[in-house]
Amino acid sequence: MRIVLDAMGSDKHPHPEVQAAIQAGREFGEQTILVGDQDVLEPLLGEDADAVELVHAGEVFEMSDHISHGALRRVQNSMGVGADLLSRGEADAMVTAGNTAGALAISLARLGRIKGVKRPALSVLFPTAAGYCVVLDIGANAECKPEYLLQFGLMGSVYAGQVLGVSQPRVGLISNGEEAGKGNQLVKETYPLMEAGNFNFIGNIEGKELFGGEADVAVTDGFTGNVLMKGSEAVAKLITDRLREEIMSSPRTKIGGLLARPAFAALAKDLDPREVGAAPLLGLNGLVFVGHGRSDAKALLNAIRLARRSVEVGLLDSLRTAIESALK
Amino acid sequence: MRIVLDAMGSDKHPHPEVQAAIQAGREFGEQTILVGDQDVLEPLLGEDADAVELVHAGEVFEMSDHISHGALRRVQNSMGVGADLLSRGEADAMVTAGNTAGALAISLARLGRIKGVKRPALSVLFPTAAGYCVVLDIGANAECKPEYLLQFGLMGSVYAGQVLGVSQPRVGLISNGEEAGKGNQLVKETYPLMEAGNFNFIGNIEGKELFGGEADVAVTDGFTGNVLMKGSEAVAKLITDRLREEIMSSPRTKIGGLLARPAFAALAKDLDPREVGAAPLLGLNGLVFVGHGRSDAKALLNAIRLARRSVEVGLLDSLRTAIESALK
Repeated sequence: MRIVLDAMGSDKHPHPEVQAAIQAGREFGEQTILVGDQDVLEPLLGEDADAVELVHAGEVFEMSDHISHGALRRVQNSMGVGADLLSRGEADAMVTAGNTAGALAISLARLGRIKGVKRPALSVLFPTAAGYCVVLDIGANAECKPEYLLQFGLMGSVYAGQVLGVSQPRVGLISNGEEAGKGNQLVKETYPLMEAGNFNFIGNIEGKELFGGEADVAVTDGFTGNVLMKGSEAVAKLITDRLREEIMSSPRTKIGGLLARPAFAALAKDLDPREVGAAPLLGLNGLVFVGHGRSDAKALLNAIRLARRSVEVGLLDSLRTAIESALK
Repeated sequence: MRIVLDAMGSDKHPHPEVQAAIQAGREFGEQTILVGDQDVLEPLLGEDADAVELVHAGEVFEMSDHISHGALRRVQNSMGVGADLLSRGEADAMVTAGNTAGALAISLARLGRIKGVKRPALSVLFPTAAGYCVVLDIGANAECKPEYLLQFGLMGSVYAGQVLGVSQPRVGLISNGEEAGKGNQLVKETYPLMEAGNFNFIGNIEGKELFGGEADVAVTDGFTGNVLMKGSEAVAKLITDRLREEIMSSPRTKIGGLLARPAFAALAKDLDPREVGAAPLLGLNGLVFVGHGRSDAKALLNAIRLARRSVEVGLLDSLRTAIESALK
């Protein structure tokens, strides 16, 4: 199995990537393909060079870069070079902690879509009271049609079932009310399609069900999903910041905070996107996983683990088969 | 000034309402108009009957009731009777902790819209790092047009300016990216209207800006607003529940939790919708405030205070003037 790691993705690249690639090489007994600037990476590898296969890419698609067709085709950036390896069958999956919109656009341009997939989706794992929920789309498609959402449900279900090991994943449709018939036009039109869909549709869900762990997959359009994801992150930050402030505001609460530290650490671990590592772009003709920009070596190693598991279970073929049967 | 309090609104009605009406009568030196079932309310008032003016309404629009045109016109429910008092000029504002969709539909049927208002909006105050942000629409209109959002921005700005006392309220448009040009079709079409709008438009905002306190008013369609609100509430609950669980999981963290209790109490106060009391339905031809179903007497008293302040500053006339000038 050959996993590509984009060496130039994370905010602190390439150090976390180099570390993760070396660790992965040792842990899995196979070289990780590290794609990036050879002149920068070689000196960092040092004695561990044998754990890694280096592939040169002279350019970087930066976090601040905007997508343009020209840029996507021209630039020999590390994500593009990595996607080309997948496209040529020289690697099985790619992990990047780089610009998410860029990863999607570049991968889409170089790999294309699974036959029959109308739109690829960005997914993310939300922490819930019961574990995790795969939420998609969280930003690839600001404007969606009911058929896209139906496919998101199917692909999310395959991913949750195959890779996360959930049996009969419960797929919910995010709406402004639980009852059937609630929703905007898009949700109302999507509901009957999902009822007839080839997965375990549990109906409309709201924040309570989503974060309460009552769904394994939550489907929404990329605009709503993005607003919900960023809103949730911001609420979590507001609460933890305010609590820290309040705890530091008196000697008594400071001591309490010190004693309760293991509880805070456990909570922080729950909410830490690094625990999961990365989330797949679903619907592409290749397996691409995108991690948080703040990823460290541990997060990237978790992402590589997830990518390996996806290859092992044959995620790409399962997605192809599911889409193909749904089209019949 | 005459404020109507729906006696049958909150989850635990009518006890919190009776208590709040009596307290308001004492505090403001004017009778509160309490609308509800006379046979139920009179015995509860007892010696304090003089603090309250009782208006009978034999029916209740329950939390579980669905809106139908027939029900709205026929039923002599407490919200409807209260709205009729506003409509006849016999009261200046109404507070209810009842069914939000019902409050909107009933008030709309009985009071109508301010001339020129395309759609009334439900607003809510989100706690932020800097205080509060007026978010609207959070559920009245699942499907919106750019002109609706423009008016939401204007009405939210008038409310934040006049009632919350914010000078030059910063109005943001909730989107999936801060940059101009980001958004779904609705947001992209709304942006230029807001740029030309008669208020302090600060551009697109995301969760970070919203909860970071960088906007005083956040505008969105009722579907996205509702998903965001319920998602935010659920994240806050998930975090506080998990933290409580972790704190209770060992003797050390339990002691820490006890010592840190004032910090948790301060945070809970920050996040407590009862602190604010209620949020206005904006765009109706009358002032109606809807509080949380969980409202207690303190929350309802805060809501009455907010309603009184809105009457004092002439909110309804300011909204009328703002809409009228915008239409010129």
